[in-house]
Amino acid sequence: MLPLHIDNDFSALGQRMYALAERLFPICRSITGNGLRETLRILQQEIPLELFEVPTGTPAFDWVVPREWNIRDAYIKNSRSEKIVDFQQNNLHVLNYSIPINTRMSLEELRPHLFTLPDKPEWIPYRTSYFNDNWGFCITHQQLEMMPDDDYEVVIDSSLEPGALSYGELTIPGESEEQVLLFAHCCHPSLANDNLSGIAVVVELAKMLSASSPRFTYRCIFAPGTIGCITWLSQNKPELSKVKLGLVAAVLGDLGQLTYKKTRAGETLIDRAALHILRHRNMTFTTLEFSPYGYDERQFASPGINLPVGRLTRTPNGKYPEYHTSADNMSLITPDALADSLTAYNEIITLIENNYVYQSNFPYCEPQLGKRGLYRTTGGHANAEQRELAMLWVLNQSDGQHDLLDIAERSDIPFATIASAATELAAADVIKKV
Amino acid sequence: MLPLHIDNDFSALGQRMYALAERLFPICRSITGNGLRETLRILQQEIPLELFEVPTGTPAFDWVVPREWNIRDAYIKNSRSEKIVDFQQNNLHVLNYSIPINTRMSLEELRPHLFTLPDKPEWIPYRTSYFNDNWGFCITHQQLEMMPDDDYEVVIDSSLEPGALSYGELTIPGESEEQVLLFAHCCHPSLANDNLSGIAVVVELAKMLSASSPRFTYRCIFAPGTIGCITWLSQNKPELSKVKLGLVAAVLGDLGQLTYKKTRAGETLIDRAALHILRHRNMTFTTLEFSPYGYDERQFASPGINLPVGRLTRTPNGKYPEYHTSADNMSLITPDALADSLTAYNEIITLIENNYVYQSNFPYCEPQLGKRGLYRTTGGHANAEQRELAMLWVLNQSDGQHDLLDIAERSDIPFATIASAATELAAADVIKKV
Amino acid sequence: MLPLHIDNDFSALGQRMYALAERLFPICRSITGNGLRETLRILQQEIPLELFEVPTGTPAFDWVVPREWNIRDAYIKNSRSEKIVDFQQNNLHVLNYSIPINTRMSLEELRPHLFTLPDKPEWIPYRTSYFNDNWGFCITHQQLEMMPDDDYEVVIDSSLEPGALSYGELTIPGESEEQVLLFAHCCHPSLANDNLSGIAVVVELAKMLSASSPRFTYRCIFAPGTIGCITWLSQNKPELSKVKLGLVAAVLGDLGQLTYKKTRAGETLIDRAALHILRHRNMTFTTLEFSPYGYDERQFASPGINLPVGRLTRTPNGKYPEYHTSADNMSLITPDALADSLTAYNEIITLIENNYVYQSNFPYCEPQLGKRGLYRTTGGHANAEQRELAMLWVLNQSDGQHDLLDIAERSDIPFATIASAATELAAADVIKKV
Repeated sequence: MLPLHIDNDFSALGQRMYALAERLFPICRSITGNGLRETLRILQQEIPLELFEVPTGTPAFDWVVPREWNIRDAYIKNSRSEKIVDFQQNNLHVLNYSIPINTRMSLEELRPHLFTLPDKPEWIPYRTSYFNDNWGFCITHQQLEMMPDDDYEVVIDSSLEPGALSYGELTIPGESEEQVLLFAHCCHPSLANDNLSGIAVVVELAKMLSASSPRFTYRCIFAPGTIGCITWLSQNKPELSKVKLGLVAAVLGDLGQLTYKKTRAGETLIDRAALHILRHRNMTFTTLEFSPYGYDERQFASPGINLPVGRLTRTPNGKYPEYHTSADNMSLITPDALADSLTAYNEIITLIENNYVYQSNFPYCEPQLGKRGLYRTTGGHANAEQRELAMLWVLNQSDGQHDLLDIAERSDIPFATIASAATELAAADVIKKV
Repeated sequence: MLPLHIDNDFSALGQRMYALAERLFPICRSITGNGLRETLRILQQEIPLELFEVPTGTPAFDWVVPREWNIRDAYIKNSRSEKIVDFQQNNLHVLNYSIPINTRMSLEELRPHLFTLPDKPEWIPYRTSYFNDNWGFCITHQQLEMMPDDDYEVVIDSSLEPGALSYGELTIPGESEEQVLLFAHCCHPSLANDNLSGIAVVVELAKMLSASSPRFTYRCIFAPGTIGCITWLSQNKPELSKVKLGLVAAVLGDLGQLTYKKTRAGETLIDRAALHILRHRNMTFTTLEFSPYGYDERQFASPGINLPVGRLTRTPNGKYPEYHTSADNMSLITPDALADSLTAYNEIITLIENNYVYQSNFPYCEPQLGKRGLYRTTGGHANAEQRELAMLWVLNQSDGQHDLLDIAERSDIPFATIASAATELAAADVIKKV
Repeated sequence: MLPLHIDNDFSALGQRMYALAERLFPICRSITGNGLRETLRILQQEIPLELFEVPTGTPAFDWVVPREWNIRDAYIKNSRSEKIVDFQQNNLHVLNYSIPINTRMSLEELRPHLFTLPDKPEWIPYRTSYFNDNWGFCITHQQLEMMPDDDYEVVIDSSLEPGALSYGELTIPGESEEQVLLFAHCCHPSLANDNLSGIAVVVELAKMLSASSPRFTYRCIFAPGTIGCITWLSQNKPELSKVKLGLVAAVLGDLGQLTYKKTRAGETLIDRAALHILRHRNMTFTTLEFSPYGYDERQFASPGINLPVGRLTRTPNGKYPEYHTSADNMSLITPDALADSLTAYNEIITLIENNYVYQSNFPYCEPQLGKRGLYRTTGGHANAEQRELAMLWVLNQSDGQHDLLDIAERSDIPFATIASAATELAAADVIKKV
């Protein structure tokens, strides 16, 4: 069981997470290929991640693992052989999963293959075409507007060939076989908040959990979004009945407030735990009802899988202007925001680890706490101290039906105070774990 | 099954409903008698209504069908033989169900038999005495105040004799034996909104349903209020287990906003359907909790009958000043209000007809919509289109437990969009009806 | 069954309750001893209370009945032999349950044994040390500040010896063996609101109930707080399954508004009854959620006892500045406030006594009330009278599933009106008790 209080220097951890994100930022990732593989190998330098390679053509429920995509270079040159768009400058410039091309064409022919953001003329959009053979370039709208009609040389030196889809996983065994999933998608190229931030947070959580003796078994999963998550679920289907709950970790480095998105069922342990912690942090936060759109909570929430997996982000996908553009870079995220996200994750996990059900050994009336040194000896005061109140709540509700989180919620006392009171009472043999 | 979208010219239908009401307006109806019978025969010219005659003395639960009331003339003459109150001018002038009388009397003797509205001195009230032998005249308060003490000739040429209680019914068979009831009371004399408006709306619904091949069996009932409804229920008791739901249609022609009154149970399909449609019409509306006072929803909601019958009116009974007075005439109702009411009824019925439960054929993770041409091929956009979102919701919730209305409510997407998405997905064999 | 309407002169009862409190005020009560015993004997002059003496050493769940405490005198004299603190002036001056002492000491030695209220320098606090051997004096902060360093004579002429814990109980048998508990703690010395007010209210309720033939069996309990309640529960454990509900009566004489504190389960009959009455009194009131802190509802709500016992006070414990100080004296409480509290208790008990479940003898549609003289004979009015509406609600909901309080709550009609309507309908054989 994780201790109730950890004295980590979260500020230093923020710096470390930022440094990891910085190192991963330049790599051109996708849902398959060497960029993804290199990313996972760097994570292996941090934690003992196991790498999995699922061959092209492997079925994954209604899907099939696609051909592996690799890219070496891509550019557009004008008729004066000047590179006006260059993959080496920013890997977002290529429509992710573009088929290879090497040809010359007019602006008119090229135009349907150019993606821009007219509303944000200085930013490059991030676009993909995973399952439809296509090629294209993503450029700023300013670039587009400066492109004259010309004879353009268009080169994408990519390959789509049988290979594998890679993902990484670290299992940290606990006292119980019940599993907690921590899932971070790692398929995006040079985008910092989405999702190097989530990757960095899960890496630190994995380190903390490995250093302790957790109650539950934790599975930290780093896989591509959608097809990677579906592949993981399909490969792990027999194990899924062991999953107690999970969190999708994404978009955790920006300055926005934390946002918890509920599970499909909406009132499960992870929902109650996350929202309890967020309510008691004295910082504003947002609660989102479940919807089948967003990150990989979609797959966990599909009717046949139906696992209680919530999602904790800062500003969620699609709700910050830099989302899926070149402006989601290392200047959008900060060490402090990463540290704050890590703290919240840590508090939620600590709650889950310490959330026991107790039964009173003295269920008839209140036990006499005073003779056990648990209560002040002079009576008549107008109000109870919070510690005493927490003990009275634990005693009153410890009928074997309520976990400590129930008691914290009903009493409106922070979980940590309730859990400390329960520990004191259990040490004095007044209550026992069920 | 009714199609999801109907291209009726509701404005023209409004004119047609108004014309029908205009034709029925002058007739002196009651809970029995020739005025009621004539009304039903006029409706037979519109729809193939079956007429039922239940003889006087027939028991109807705790009630008995009363003697039939017919009236030819009624007046009060002053001592100069001037008709100062004349049934031929307005049939509201007679206390409905008055016993015959032909005598002379002073104002003092007459006074207890005169009904007025002191607060609305220019309007004639509508009053009845169905089950207590009495006679009387309803006049304006202005009339009363101008009546000197005099020797009045008082004549009511009515009869109360064994006969029958008449009602009309049209059954439109559907694929299913499950029944939907549409009930309009038709016992009121010259009152337009209450309830020629309701009669006209149900007549048009009957035409629409007859022209389609509905999923459910519809029973359109035109019967007197209270005793007529009770008689109908008593005559149809063995059939009531087939009733899926129903609506009481009344007061549908005034300019007030639509008002839905919930069923006794309060959360049944008709409640959810009506309120979903009203919420998505972008017009203000009122929701009333059930109460055992009002129109014939009272009888459907009695503890032994207990059918899920809601009520959709515009301004409800007792809540508009003209209610049950001579001011509830053809100038109170408009073709547009009737058309708007009809539209709402049509949308509610369409929802119920199309409200299926589906089950996903691909419950494990999301199915790959792109390869079926159901999803855009380029990825990375910040937001989903509503059509795609509707498909994702249908897929996520199609576990055989949720009907399309559940999904529309949870997603806050209009039912029609959800139902269209389900149709697309079913056509692509991604989901199937349960 | 108590009649629905009682014509008591509550104002006179207020005077009588105030006079009883005045008589009891000077006595130095504690959780055991002669002051407590004398108090119960005075109550015996009002109602036929049975006295119980539970010997020192008797186990009571996790507790043991303590030695009996008696006190004859206590004072502090300065070096000039002047009594500067005198128990005879105010019995709050002694730390309740002080062990005997007779010695001389400096201010420095005395200081840890002096209790004051620095924020309320003119008031004497009420402090106890029941289960920890200690002695002390409670004085005003002004007194403390005027005490020079001196050689003080400190005398507490008390005894702590084997004896008994006393409590009183009156059982008023009803038609049913189901029990209603009315509990007033009576261990506090000269404090008026806490709880001579509660004692006086329960005494009057006992008189009223004894004078009627109640449906339920009432147990009026006057016992010390905490240990007295625990002792009572321990002595009566085999009987507890007969308890239907209960109320803790305390703090009922101040000018604050009534405050109902819910039972542990929160939605039981006593909760619904008390809140219905409070809602319909046209006076502001406060609702408190259950918490395991306060008066003896704590013990009734312990997980092994778990009885539906609510609490009705005026300003609750700890929430008025005079709480547990010498300012909680006879000028804090008024006859009118006591009368108002008594009225509310009486209305709640009357509701519970009259709260039957009925079943309609005519469940199919509405029965014809007119022919039974229960409904006006002329129809067509815009609104129902409340009496008629109450009858319609009773008829509609009398399916054997809803008690009259359910019907009153759903209809938002006062319970007394609903219960009257039910009585009329039952007299006409339209409904019958289940």
